[in-house]
This record gives sequence, C-alpha cells and structure tokens, in this order.
Amino acid sequence: MINVGIVGATGYAGEELLALLLGHPYVRIRSLSALIDAPQPISELFPRFSHKIDLLCKKPDVKEIAAHCDLVFLALPHTASMDFVPKLLGAGKRVIDLSADYRFRNCRLYSKYYRVTHKDPERLRMAVYGLPELYRQKIKKASLVANPGCYPTCAILALAPLVALDSVDTSRIVIDAKSGVTGAGRKIAQDFMFSELADNFKAYKVGVHQHAPEIDQELSKVAGKALEVLFVPHLLPLKRGILETIYIAMKPKSNVTTAKLLKAYSRFYAHEPFVRIKGEGEFPALKNVIGTNFCDIGIQAQGSTVIIIAAIDNLLKGASGQAVQNMNIMYNFAESTSLL
Amino acid sequence: MINVGIVGATGYAGEELLALLLGHPYVRIRSLSALIDAPQPISELFPRFSHKIDLLCKKPDVKEIAAHCDLVFLALPHTASMDFVPKLLGAGKRVIDLSADYRFRNCRLYSKYYRVTHKDPERLRMAVYGLPELYRQKIKKASLVANPGCYPTCAILALAPLVALDSVDTSRIVIDAKSGVTGAGRKIAQDFMFSELADNFKAYKVGVHQHAPEIDQELSKVAGKALEVLFVPHLLPLKRGILETIYIAMKPKSNVTTAKLLKAYSRFYAHEPFVRIKGEGEFPALKNVIGTNFCDIGIQAQGSTVIIIAAIDNLLKGASGQAVQNMNIMYNFAESTSLL
Amino acid sequence: MINVGIVGATGYAGEELLALLLGHPYVRIRSLSALIDAPQPISELFPRFSHKIDLLCKKPDVKEIAAHCDLVFLALPHTASMDFVPKLLGAGKRVIDLSADYRFRNCRLYSKYYRVTHKDPERLRMAVYGLPELYRQKIKKASLVANPGCYPTCAILALAPLVALDSVDTSRIVIDAKSGVTGAGRKIAQDFMFSELADNFKAYKVGVHQHAPEIDQELSKVAGKALEVLFVPHLLPLKRGILETIYIAMKPKSNVTTAKLLKAYSRFYAHEPFVRIKGEGEFPALKNVIGTNFCDIGIQAQGSTVIIIAAIDNLLKGASGQAVQNMNIMYNFAESTSLL
Amino acid sequence: MINVGIVGATGYAGEELLALLLGHPYVRIRSLSALIDAPQPISELFPRFSHKIDLLCKKPDVKEIAAHCDLVFLALPHTASMDFVPKLLGAGKRVIDLSADYRFRNCRLYSKYYRVTHKDPERLRMAVYGLPELYRQKIKKASLVANPGCYPTCAILALAPLVALDSVDTSRIVIDAKSGVTGAGRKIAQDFMFSELADNFKAYKVGVHQHAPEIDQELSKVAGKALEVLFVPHLLPLKRGILETIYIAMKPKSNVTTAKLLKAYSRFYAHEPFVRIKGEGEFPALKNVIGTNFCDIGIQAQGSTVIIIAAIDNLLKGASGQAVQNMNIMYNFAESTSLL
Repeated sequence: MINVGIVGATGYAGEELLALLLGHPYVRIRSLSALIDAPQPISELFPRFSHKIDLLCKKPDVKEIAAHCDLVFLALPHTASMDFVPKLLGAGKRVIDLSADYRFRNCRLYSKYYRVTHKDPERLRMAVYGLPELYRQKIKKASLVANPGCYPTCAILALAPLVALDSVDTSRIVIDAKSGVTGAGRKIAQDFMFSELADNFKAYKVGVHQHAPEIDQELSKVAGKALEVLFVPHLLPLKRGILETIYIAMKPKSNVTTAKLLKAYSRFYAHEPFVRIKGEGEFPALKNVIGTNFCDIGIQAQGSTVIIIAAIDNLLKGASGQAVQNMNIMYNFAESTSLL
Repeated sequence: MINVGIVGATGYAGEELLALLLGHPYVRIRSLSALIDAPQPISELFPRFSHKIDLLCKKPDVKEIAAHCDLVFLALPHTASMDFVPKLLGAGKRVIDLSADYRFRNCRLYSKYYRVTHKDPERLRMAVYGLPELYRQKIKKASLVANPGCYPTCAILALAPLVALDSVDTSRIVIDAKSGVTGAGRKIAQDFMFSELADNFKAYKVGVHQHAPEIDQELSKVAGKALEVLFVPHLLPLKRGILETIYIAMKPKSNVTTAKLLKAYSRFYAHEPFVRIKGEGEFPALKNVIGTNFCDIGIQAQGSTVIIIAAIDNLLKGASGQAVQNMNIMYNFAESTSLL
Repeated sequence: MINVGIVGATGYAGEELLALLLGHPYVRIRSLSALIDAPQPISELFPRFSHKIDLLCKKPDVKEIAAHCDLVFLALPHTASMDFVPKLLGAGKRVIDLSADYRFRNCRLYSKYYRVTHKDPERLRMAVYGLPELYRQKIKKASLVANPGCYPTCAILALAPLVALDSVDTSRIVIDAKSGVTGAGRKIAQDFMFSELADNFKAYKVGVHQHAPEIDQELSKVAGKALEVLFVPHLLPLKRGILETIYIAMKPKSNVTTAKLLKAYSRFYAHEPFVRIKGEGEFPALKNVIGTNFCDIGIQAQGSTVIIIAAIDNLLKGASGQAVQNMNIMYNFAESTSLL
Repeated sequence: MINVGIVGATGYAGEELLALLLGHPYVRIRSLSALIDAPQPISELFPRFSHKIDLLCKKPDVKEIAAHCDLVFLALPHTASMDFVPKLLGAGKRVIDLSADYRFRNCRLYSKYYRVTHKDPERLRMAVYGLPELYRQKIKKASLVANPGCYPTCAILALAPLVALDSVDTSRIVIDAKSGVTGAGRKIAQDFMFSELADNFKAYKVGVHQHAPEIDQELSKVAGKALEVLFVPHLLPLKRGILETIYIAMKPKSNVTTAKLLKAYSRFYAHEPFVRIKGEGEFPALKNVIGTNFCDIGIQAQGSTVIIIAAIDNLLKGASGQAVQNMNIMYNFAESTSLL
C-alpha cells in the first residue's frame, strides 16, 4: 500500500489518473492539488466523482504533499512541472511527471519547442523516459520518471521494432497522426470550441509539432543513429484516441513482406501486456483502444513502402494509463493492476 | 436593388446572414462591421467566403454605414444593439435587429432577464416583432424590425393556432426545448468547449431562460389573455437546429383529435411559404430543417394532452433566414428569395 | 466464486456485461453464446477484448451452459428469452434476464407491445423486477430476475419518491425522454445508420413506446393506484446515455418547494449506493453518468409543476450494470463490486 | 433552359444533385427515378424537399426519360450505369454518369477493382473524364461525361501541377486520405451504423481501394509517364468532406521551396473558379469546403518532401457539384451557376 498525490488534478490527464487510482487496490490517494484560486471538493469540480471520493483539491503545497505521499504524479502544463520536481526529489519522494519537462536529454531542443529556458537541466539526466516497453528495468529503480507524450508513445511503439533494420531508409519516415481533442489539454480557446471542431477535420502545426523531436530522440537511440521523422498531426472531431498511419521507405531489394514483419513485431512484443499486433490484413480502430491501456498495431508491406498503423487512447496509454503502469513497475505491483 | 450593411458580421448569425445575402439577386452588400480591434478581410475571418467576397470587416462607424446602406442588419450581442438603433433610425435608415433589445414591450422584463437597463425605451413601441406569420403587414412598413429569438420563433409557430381555443388549459403548457450549440452565439467559455459538449446532453437555465418571457408576451397577445409557459431548454451535441416538444393540457371534455388539429393547423398556415405541417403519425426531424428556413410541425392528441413537436434551424428561421424573409417583405421582393 | 454464462454475448448489453464481469473478482466466466451461425472467438467479434479473454462464443446449448454455470445472464432480443428461461430454471440455475420477457405481470400488455403471445405466462409471477432500490430483499432470494428496461429504470427512480404523495396529480405526468443510439440494440437498419443520426435529433414512437406500460406498472404499485404516464422518447446523436425531463402537475395548494423535495429524495435514497441527488439549482449531465452505474437526479418546483431531471447510462444502470448489481445482491457480494 | 432527369435520385449524390438543380435558373427537372419497388413522391422519400418539389420518383423507364429530357444524370451504384448509358446515348441524349463505369480507359482495371466484366467497353473511349480543371474543352462537346470519383478529384487537383516536374520522385507519392461517411453511399451495413462509427476512426481497404487506379490513370497522363501512388483511405466520424494529406518525395538537390510551389500552383489554377490555394503556413479545414464546390489546397516543402493538403466536399466537388459544373460547361451556362 502506497500513499500518492496528484498535482494538477483538474486537467484531463489528472482527472483520468484519479479515476484509475480510485480503482487501484494498493494505492491510497492522499493529496489532490491544482493551480486553482481556492480549495474545492474534487467531486464538485468533477461531479462524476461524487459518491466516490470526497477529498479537497487545493493549491499545491510541497511540504504538505511531501508529508503525506510516497509518490507524486505531476499532471501539470508543460513548464510548470520543473518548479515542483527539485523540491519533491529533495524531500526524498518519487515523481512521475506527465509533462514534457524532463523528457529531453538536450535542453536546447526543449527551449526551442516549448519556448522557455529549462530551469533544472541537471536533473534531465537522471530522469528515466517512462516507456515500459523500452525502459522497464530503469523505471523500476527511477526516482523521476518522465512520462512520454501521447503522439510519441504511439509512434515509438509502432517503429521501435523496425528502425534498427538495415533495410529501412531512415530518412524517409512519414508519420501522419490523427488525435482526438483532449490531446491538447483542457484549454479554453476559440480553436477548441464545439462549433469549431464538430464536423471539422484539419492538420495543424504541420512539420513544427513539439512531439517530433521527442520521437526523433527516442527512435535515434533505438536505431543507433540520428534520424528525423516527418510528423504531421491532425485534429479529429472526437474526444479521445490517437491513430497514426506511418509510411517507411525501404531500401531497394530489401524484400520485406507483411508476414515477416508481423512475425518480427510479435516476437519483439511477445511479453508485453499492453501491445497487441493485429493479424494480416487487419488494422486498428480507435474504438478498440479507447478506454484501454493498449497500443494496437497493424502492418502491411506495399511495394517498397511499409505501412504501420498504430492506435492508443491518448489519455491512457498516452498519459495516465502509462503513468499508472510506470507506478506499478516502480513498486513491484502486477504491471496491469487497475489497467485491465 | 438595395444596399445593405451588417453590423456584427463575425458572429454565427452574421456569418449566416452574409452567406444568404451573397446569394440574393436584389441586394448589394456595402458594409461589414463588428466589434473587433482592427479591420480584416471578411474572407480571412471566414475562409469559407474566400473567392466569394473580398470586403473588409471594420469597426462599426454609423456615419459611414448610413452613407452607403438603405437597410442595416444588427447581428450584435444583446444590449449592444440599442447603441446603434437610435442613430441609424435617426439617419433615416431601416433596421432589422437580430438581438433581443427591441423584442419586449415591457422594458422591466428586459431589464430583469438581460440584467441591464434599457437605454432606448421609447423606440420599443415602434419596433415590429418580426415574425412574418403573425405580423406580415406591419413588417412591410416597419422602420425597425425586432427579429424574434430562436426558441420563441419555434414555440410561437407551434402554439399560435392553438392557444386561442377555449378548450386549452393555458396554465399548463410545457415546452421541452432542445437546441444545438450555435444557439448560444460564438462565446468562448468552458461550457462550450468541444470536450464538454461532445457525447454530452443536459438541461440548462431550468425555468429561468430569457426566452420564456418573450414567448409569453407573444402567445398572450395571440390568446387574448396573459399566459405563462413552462420552458426548459437543453443543449444538444450538434451545431445547429432546435426541436421543441410541447405538452398542452386540454380542459375536460374538450374532445380534440389529431385529425381535427392537423386540419386547423393546415388551414392556419395554408399560405405560409415556410411552415410545413407533417401528416398524422409523422414528426419533424432536425435533419429536414437544418440548412432551410422551414418550421416543421407535427401534432398528436393523446388523452387529455396535445403534443406538438416543432423544429427549425436556429440560425435560419431562428435568426438570419427570418431576417432575410423580413427584408424581402419590407422591400416587396418575393418572400422566399434566396431562402429556397 | 461463482460460475456464470452470458447468452446473447454479441449485443451491446452482452458486450458491456462481459466487460464488467471480466473485472469482477468473484466471478468466473464459463460460457459465452449468441444466436450466431458458427462459433467464433469473442476477441475476434470484439477486438477490444483481445488479450483479455479468449473464450469461444457459440450457439447456445442449454445443457452445456447448465453444466458449467451457477448463474446465467440472458442478453437476448425481446421474445427470445422465454425459450431459455424455463429450461435453465428447470435445471436449477438462477437467471437474470435483460430482455422484457419477464417484466410484466400482465401478459396481455406484453403481447400488445411486443406483438407476440407469451409462451411462459406461469413464470411471470415468480420473476422479480430487478430494481434494487425497490426490491432488494426479493432479489436476494430470486431464481429469476427480470432486469428493468433502460427508460423505466430512469423514470421509476426519478418518480418513486413522489408518486405516492397526495399532492401529486397522477393523471398529469409527462416524461420527455432522450436516449443515445445503443438504446435500440445492435440493429442493422436504415434508421440507425451514421448518416441518418449524426447531427440529427427527433422524437419516435410518440405515445406508443413499449416502455410506457412498464413504467406504468411499477409506478402504479408504488403509488398504490393505477396511473398512466405520457411518455415521449427522442433519439440523441450520441452512443450512450438517457436523460429524462419529467413534468409532474401538483394539485392546487400543494405547497411543494424545491428544498422540501430535495430533502425527501435524499432521505428516500439515503442508503443507495447508485443514486445521487443533485443540490438545489443543479441538474444532471449525461457526461457525469456515462461509464458509471449511477442515476443522477435533479429537482425543481416551478409554480404548480415539479420538474425532475434524471440521467443514467442506458448500458450500465439501464442494463448490464444493474444486472451485475442484481447478481451482487443475489450472491451476497458487496453491492458495488466491479461497479465503482 | 434545358430539361434534365436524374436516375438514382434516392442516393446521397442524387439527393444533393436534386438540391442543386432546384436552385438552378436554367434547368427544368423533368424526371426522377431510382431502383425502387414502387413510385413515391420525392418529398416523401426526402422530407427536406417537401414544399419545394412534388415530382414522383419512379422506376427508370429509358423511353420515358428520353422523351422528356435533354440531359440525364446517372447517380447509380457502380456497375448499374452501363445498363443505361448505351440506350440514352442511342436516343441522342447527353449523359453525365456519376458512377465509376466510364472512368477507366482500361476495362481490365475496371473488372479487377469493381469485380464485374464491363458490358460496354467500346463507349469507354468516347467518355470524357469530367474534371473541368483538366478537360474543360472536351467536356464542352462531350455526349458522355464520366464524373470523377471523390478521392480522385481531390488527389488529382492536389497533384496535377506537380507530377510533371523532373524533380519529383514519382515512385514515392503517398496519399493519406480521410473521408466522411457519405463517401460510401447510402449502404445499410454493420460498418456504417452510428454506434460503429461515432467516436471511431480507422483506415480501410489499405492499399486496395478502387480509387487508386483511377488516380494513377489520370496522374500518369499529366506526368507523361506511368506512375502509381500509395493510397490509404480512412473513415472520419462525420458525414461529409474529404481531406487528403499527400507526401511527395523530391529527388536530391531539387531545391523546392514552399514559396515557389505556392506560386506555381497559383499560376496553374489562376482562372479556376473552384480551386483556392491557401497562403504560406495555412492549410485547409473541412469546415471551409463543406457545403461548397471548392477544392482548397495548402502546400509546404519540408526537407526533401513536399506536403500537400487538399480538401473538398465529397458530395459536391467530389460528386454532384462537379456534375453540375460539367453541365454548366456543356450548355455554356456560367460555370458557377447554382454553385456559389
């Protein structure tokens, strides 16, 4: 049994995290806080939690949080987490940060894409990138887990088994990504109004999205050489879910087949509880992953191109579900506790 | 050929009005303005109008507007119109006001529901309530038309043929109304975010909506006695359309039948171009009125209750379409010009 | 630990039931069947269950089901259940039937609304209507539970504390109901196509819906006298959720107030785990009940009318969630096991 | 003034065509027919047309149609049109066929993708591919216009100015296409049910869609050499609109820039009434083309890849709007009559 706190409980990720932790048998929720003006019962902020929990959501007070919690989840906007991490680690707490603040090894990249100077560059190196499928052993012992971005989680899982192959032309990887609206967080802006988005569809941040360098960083490590993907995100008229259609150019005479690829992927993810490889000719649909922590992957070789289609729930495997998966690993709970 | 201007061209009603007027053969659009900071081409504000019109949308300047226009549409937020109406009328212009500012005869009701003191009470009396089915002859000669609210348009058309009957218990009229999201105008607020409204449905302003007294005022005139309806609006997860399900208690021994009611309604609206009475056992669906200026009405007598279901497009018959219908009447154009 | 089976596992209710039972700590799923042509892995029929369960879904074989199960859920279309119930009861099994087949005391009403003669009228009397808030003690000992309809669950919970009051005019109860599309089951028909329903809204079966007599039967029992409600259902463009806005006429001088009603309701449901009464001026929204087993209820007295707004998830409290709640009661499991 | 008929008036394209023709000043609609069992007023089939037209929709009788019409639109399912074309052309009528039956020059391709032997191969050669931006002069004189597919219209307009350039690697063109649900026609099938599609998103017919060879045929003509695109369609949870995100690999040292490309596209489409090129850094959104006959195109060069994003309304520029545009060209009406 561990004691946990959520800082940033009023965003979409915080709300989802709370829902998962409420159903977790080995967790006591001891502290809920957010960047709000006055304390308010969490069940008033989210009437769906009425009759389930009656904790007060307060302004975050690091001392109080540290006094009650073993583990703290930070579900804050980007650039806000790095104010809390040093103090919480200093108090001997373990931290899972759902923001982008500790995901980059290179703080210049962070500054370029998040438009702010990093305040805590020395701790970037101790943070573990919280993708269990690649870094499970490191996560187990980590004090600070940088929970991956939603688009990167989907892209890295889709590409990790492939990018190290010699036959792949790593200069020609295109990720055409489509996301539900909660991916942007609980922002109040013209762009996210119902009447703007319903019955609409469009690309945004074409070639300049902040998740592209995160994908590049992680896939370069896997590939063993620097690579850059072309990443074009689109906004779907639905609340949750990410589906990425990925096109990888193969070098001449590489002779890949769908069957071989499916075999390789199935082997790569054989022991993973949350990656499902579709059969030949089958592809993911958002409705099968929404509400779950799964990443579904379908594969097809077509001439000299490999098409990979992957899907996750951006709020679960792409954020809060993965955070709970990381917690389960850190505390030796069964990895799928509260996630199946 | 007349010259018209739109003040408030950037709201939903203004946008829709512009679309209708662009297709109108007897209208020249001479002025577009809105409460914005700097002038901007309307085709940048609304890319859908690109290649169709290249007028600049400016801050409203009454002198300039008056210099170029015969008729001015005010598609402004409530309480903003009454700043413009006196000046435009003073300059000899005709005005169709889509806000609530000139709909009430009793300015205390206005103050109560719109929470502001009326600045121009003397012109309330000269304004004509712009519902053609009831006031066509007055509209023809009006200088100032107060274009009806969306919910009231639907409710009044649904109830006008009935409320004058002796057999109706006017103390027991319930209007259960459902509206698409554009009904609230282009507000940027938490309540109107995509992730709040998609897959959601709820009642709001239960028993306190500002359209209830507008409905009461008009139906009382038709009934020849004061009546008050019970009005409960709900928010549908779609962009446009209003459907109202109305329950009217009949006095004992009133012996109404569906067939008799259908006959009475068909007679009442026999010469109306934009009211369609459904056959027995048939009821309106939003999809048949969205994009049109029609009000569809279905009727059923059930025991001692009459059920009337009516539907309109809130942006057309409930706002801009009706405004164009009023303009057509005022200038002796064929009433359905640009509306069919 | 009990062994259970689902007959009708391929419908919406069956699918949802399976999801709930998979997370239930005291249940072993031993049999899945449906009216299908050939056996198929359930995880192929519903890819969302892949990696979670690998049972085969077969044609129902009563002997085999009886051999493996203590309790059988029937999630079949109406009129199909009565073929299975006699055999399963005969084999000494307990049954929770999610269809309408055993909900009526009067089999003539059943025949009128479901257009088929009842084949098993003698067992109608032994069936317990499975609404825990009214019949918990009987459910505990029942062999056959008739799980309530979705609209009736919402309506009865909304009205039960009120209809027995003298001040209520039981001849004037109007239920304006709105439901998501899954309420109709997994039917393949023009009416349920995406392009018919998206951005659409309409009433259907006005005054003739088969759930009206079910509501009447149960509320008459509570009221201690025969009553008939006026029931008008509508179809919302969303997948799940029911919200009912109910208008009850009060007799002259009945002096109800919102505060008194809220107090009475809170008392009536004080020990209920799945009924939540909203505070004064607050009303349910579908998004707060979707995915939960709760029924949320808001109340307002308005002149001589009481307005009650209630909401549930039609697939959970309106079907499968309530079925699991009933199972928990029947087997003395904590009532909210797998439901919170 | 010309007399026209629609065969296949009950599908989505037929419905939309009727709406456009009702507003066309130089057209008399003389005949409506469809593959239905018994004649029915079109305003019963589509209540939205009530009070606008009261023609009967019948089974198609070629003699009767030929007796009344100058021009016949065929809005039939694929493989049904070729039964009507020979007879109508034989009777001296002009025909615009919205199906795929006369789009291919190579009838083996047709057979492969539409799984039926072509019955009228000799007339394939006389059919003009009805894309005005490429074939306006031929359309003017055509007896038989093969109206393009929706995906191909969008793809060909997006790529035509580019594929003839030497710097393009025509072996690496990826079209990631997303379409609303009406693209599939009015099919009644499990796949197109509301509850399957709402809140869902997925790819389908990956690499095997019948529109790929149509795109290849037309772009090969423009490029002056055989090319094959990689085409992956996806299904959006909305009714209408197609958006295609296209990735074109450029040969080494090709030095394209966004600015140069925008200039080239603007020149290429300078006189086109229905193609709009977005400014640098701007991209199409479905909401700006839905309900219009426009194709919006945005362009960005990114490293050695050119990204082109194009959007149309699949029922207008992708079907019925384009058919009316073709009619306007064939009869020397102003090309945008009834389309702006």
